[in-house]
Amino acid sequence: MELFYSQDIEGGICRLDKDESGHCVKVLRHRSGDEIAVIDGCGTLYRCRITTDSPKGVEAMVLSAEEGWGSHPYRLHMAVCPTKNNDRYEWFAEKACEIGLDEITPIIGEHSERRVFKTSRLEKILVSAAKQSLKAAVPTVNEPVSVKDFIKDTAQGEALKLIAYCFEEEEAPRRNIKEVMEEWQGSEIIVMIGPEGDFSKAEAELALRSGFIPVHLGASRLRTETAALTAVAAAYFQHM
Amino acid sequence: MELFYSQDIEGGICRLDKDESGHCVKVLRHRSGDEIAVIDGCGTLYRCRITTDSPKGVEAMVLSAEEGWGSHPYRLHMAVCPTKNNDRYEWFAEKACEIGLDEITPIIGEHSERRVFKTSRLEKILVSAAKQSLKAAVPTVNEPVSVKDFIKDTAQGEALKLIAYCFEEEEAPRRNIKEVMEEWQGSEIIVMIGPEGDFSKAEAELALRSGFIPVHLGASRLRTETAALTAVAAAYFQHM
Repeated sequence: MELFYSQDIEGGICRLDKDESGHCVKVLRHRSGDEIAVIDGCGTLYRCRITTDSPKGVEAMVLSAEEGWGSHPYRLHMAVCPTKNNDRYEWFAEKACEIGLDEITPIIGEHSERRVFKTSRLEKILVSAAKQSLKAAVPTVNEPVSVKDFIKDTAQGEALKLIAYCFEEEEAPRRNIKEVMEEWQGSEIIVMIGPEGDFSKAEAELALRSGFIPVHLGASRLRTETAALTAVAAAYFQHM
Repeated sequence: MELFYSQDIEGGICRLDKDESGHCVKVLRHRSGDEIAVIDGCGTLYRCRITTDSPKGVEAMVLSAEEGWGSHPYRLHMAVCPTKNNDRYEWFAEKACEIGLDEITPIIGEHSERRVFKTSRLEKILVSAAKQSLKAAVPTVNEPVSVKDFIKDTAQGEALKLIAYCFEEEEAPRRNIKEVMEEWQGSEIIVMIGPEGDFSKAEAELALRSGFIPVHLGASRLRTETAALTAVAAAYFQHM
């Protein structure tokens, strides 16, 4: 099933941007009268009929709309420190979107080697991943923030807040992420994953004071991006 | 922790090959008398003291050996059809090794676009992944076989045998992989993951007749390599 993506759907008219229009008309050779399926990135799938088949700007008439198309029964926000190698982060984002993800925040920790992060590439990757995995919602990518600011920003709210680190805080032993998720009755989950150098003690302590539950991801020693995807899979299986 | 890999450990003497020796002496500047940790790829970690610090061939005396170092409490054999893009398969293999995997068999299905597969690159990737994730066992990579031959080859044995495909066989509805694994009391698991074009009906029927249980991986539509890694995560969480 071929999906198009448009952020310009209004008053029963759907417009594709230049890239999508070119793909629609030049590559897939769609013409006026053809039916196409378009996601708005916010969770709705639109079935449309092409009225203008210009490769520069396709216009289509909305025939029907399906909300929550390809959605999952929970809301997962992954706050993950950028990896030294950017491909690994992009790989995580693509796979997480396929499995089930709603929001990504790149967080910069005290031990983060990589302190700058461009979100534009990631947004493109997530649009393709959502189309590829038949989801009408494209995960939101937030601008990078420091770990401490992220903890402060999530102080309010009903979400289950988890932080995964590799050391042991005596007063707050880490729990198995699977068990913590099994106990959770709500639908909103936030998981913080640290950089290659792990979270700092100060970051961990601030998180615990702010209501984050310290978790581990099992016995295996996982890279940042693998740990992040494993947490995404844990949430997915919990709601399977 | 820096790990070296050697398949030449005998009579209390451990020898590193040229690459590992160069890395040990030139990059890490180890000298005679230094202690190093070496995995044999079969599950044992050796602590050794360097006796010859030649960059062409390091020799070390074995001080102690620890069997089952970094092992997991199950045995997972993933039989996965090669992806069109080889990077995706290599990525799966690396991540699966980090999480927990024992054996990979590239299987060629009737709908496989990619029908040839070189295992040599994969073996190198798995050695690095095992070292990186602190496991003394490196997953075995088998030579590619056809899906039907793989099914015949696994006819004997005690393993839980699962096949994941996307269509529905009326007489054998697919079950949730998580539930099937939860019921399983044994430790050995085999999972077959099909190509982009899925398994053929004939392959699925042969698998079912041969004791494979048809499973699905939840509501998300996953790429071959993502489906394979999700199955690896399912086994990991089941034994967490």
